[in-house]
Amino acid sequence: MAVRIERGVDFPMVDLANIAYYPRIFDLAHRFFEDAWMEICNIRYADLILVRKIGFPVVHVESDFHLPLRYGDQITATIWIDAIGESSCTWCYEFHNQHGQLLWTSSQVTVCVDMESMKRRTIPDDLRLGLESCKRDD
Amino acid sequence: MAVRIERGVDFPMVDLANIAYYPRIFDLAHRFFEDAWMEICNIRYADLILVRKIGFPVVHVESDFHLPLRYGDQITATIWIDAIGESSCTWCYEFHNQHGQLLWTSSQVTVCVDMESMKRRTIPDDLRLGLESCKRDD
Amino acid sequence: MAVRIERGVDFPMVDLANIAYYPRIFDLAHRFFEDAWMEICNIRYADLILVRKIGFPVVHVESDFHLPLRYGDQITATIWIDAIGESSCTWCYEFHNQHGQLLWTSSQVTVCVDMESMKRRTIPDDLRLGLESCKRDD
Amino acid sequence: MAVRIERGVDFPMVDLANIAYYPRIFDLAHRFFEDAWMEICNIRYADLILVRKIGFPVVHVESDFHLPLRYGDQITATIWIDAIGESSCTWCYEFHNQHGQLLWTSSQVTVCVDMESMKRRTIPDDLRLGLESCKRDD
Repeated sequence: MAVRIERGVDFPMVDLANIAYYPRIFDLAHRFFEDAWMEICNIRYADLILVRKIGFPVVHVESDFHLPLRYGDQITATIWIDAIGESSCTWCYEFHNQHGQLLWTSSQVTVCVDMESMKRRTIPDDLRLGLESCKRDD
Repeated sequence: MAVRIERGVDFPMVDLANIAYYPRIFDLAHRFFEDAWMEICNIRYADLILVRKIGFPVVHVESDFHLPLRYGDQITATIWIDAIGESSCTWCYEFHNQHGQLLWTSSQVTVCVDMESMKRRTIPDDLRLGLESCKRDD
Repeated sequence: MAVRIERGVDFPMVDLANIAYYPRIFDLAHRFFEDAWMEICNIRYADLILVRKIGFPVVHVESDFHLPLRYGDQITATIWIDAIGESSCTWCYEFHNQHGQLLWTSSQVTVCVDMESMKRRTIPDDLRLGLESCKRDD
Repeated sequence: MAVRIERGVDFPMVDLANIAYYPRIFDLAHRFFEDAWMEICNIRYADLILVRKIGFPVVHVESDFHLPLRYGDQITATIWIDAIGESSCTWCYEFHNQHGQLLWTSSQVTVCVDMESMKRRTIPDDLRLGLESCKRDD
């Protein structure tokens, strides 16, 4: 099942035309990504990084900017995992605003790494279990 | 001819593993994009936005993260325009570090808009002339 | 009565030593400031800015950094108003972590402005009422 | 002698009123601070941090925001060291724009730390020599 999480568009996100500066949309996506770990695998991303020394850096991104994110908007992120390999997995994002308009979509390939060596490693079984259950809703 | 511009990786760009946080690579790309306007069209992007009321927001992004950007790296961005339509144009970026390693590539479709209405408009002829001359080097 | 609001320290806040980069502590303070308006005056800061065209930019800041904010910390901000004049008011912040340690304190003078002229104006009575009731707890 | 360094106000610095978001003024000050090390002590701050494992985190900040920084402004930072103790030193900043207007002033106490233990340490003699020579101009 896909995960749904909400966050507002803060004042610092927008530019002088009251449109979110696009790198900050990726920053927002990352904050949702962090939040999603608790929903998907019942672990804080902070503990994954700091205690289990495992990270999931991004290696490939595709994104479409359909409509602007504006200050005060309430964003609902729908997040699911599209594909899981030995060490990589593909995260999909859809952002809608409070009017139900589709604003932004992205697919992002992340690779599981050992945070000490920064080398690619197999996704641990307990995480794989969670990630595999996070599928797009029909 | 492609444009080449240099900037360093500042302290605030990197995360706790001394790897640039990926939304800040897009932010760096935007700063290069701003710098490139002077090289390509002999106009400051600030004047384009504030005086001529023309902007080029991003509507589609694809990026590959080949190797990490680290604190203290000196980045050389190679920037060229891949395709120009009536109102849209595609910017291509390659980032190399001081060792000549390819770190990051991206293609980004931008659309020319009137900053007051935020509506799509034809790229003005004087800008088109510059953009068309900024081709990939053979 | 002082307001208490919680937010986590996100991954992008920290530097390569896993210590919050200090300008991002001010950014976090601003996010708490935005949240506080709903608690103090029952209005979203977004509506204050966009609908009522009133803003409260900072004109003077003093801050002490007692202990580092680290990734994964849960920050409780205690916020109160120390002094209110005709157009200015002084916000006080104390940040504690999940262990009850005092991490950061700040006092920040803000000035009420008309967002269209950016000129100083009298604080409207309905806002003054809320701000005046937000005193330090004994 | 005080150090003078220039940087432009980039598009991402400003908010929807075309005024620099105040935490990003501190971010700009930090970038000037990084640049200043080469001028003052002939060392890159990156090498200080990564090779010599020495850092200078901020522990106290005072700042006055005299006039807004706006997109496209060219900022000249004047930086000097006001006081040096055993392990702490006080950095002073004045930002002027291209019209010679004073925009922002700040004094910031930093403490010399060992980056591995994050413990306070004596400022090394070679750095002290440079820092002591960076006085306010008469």
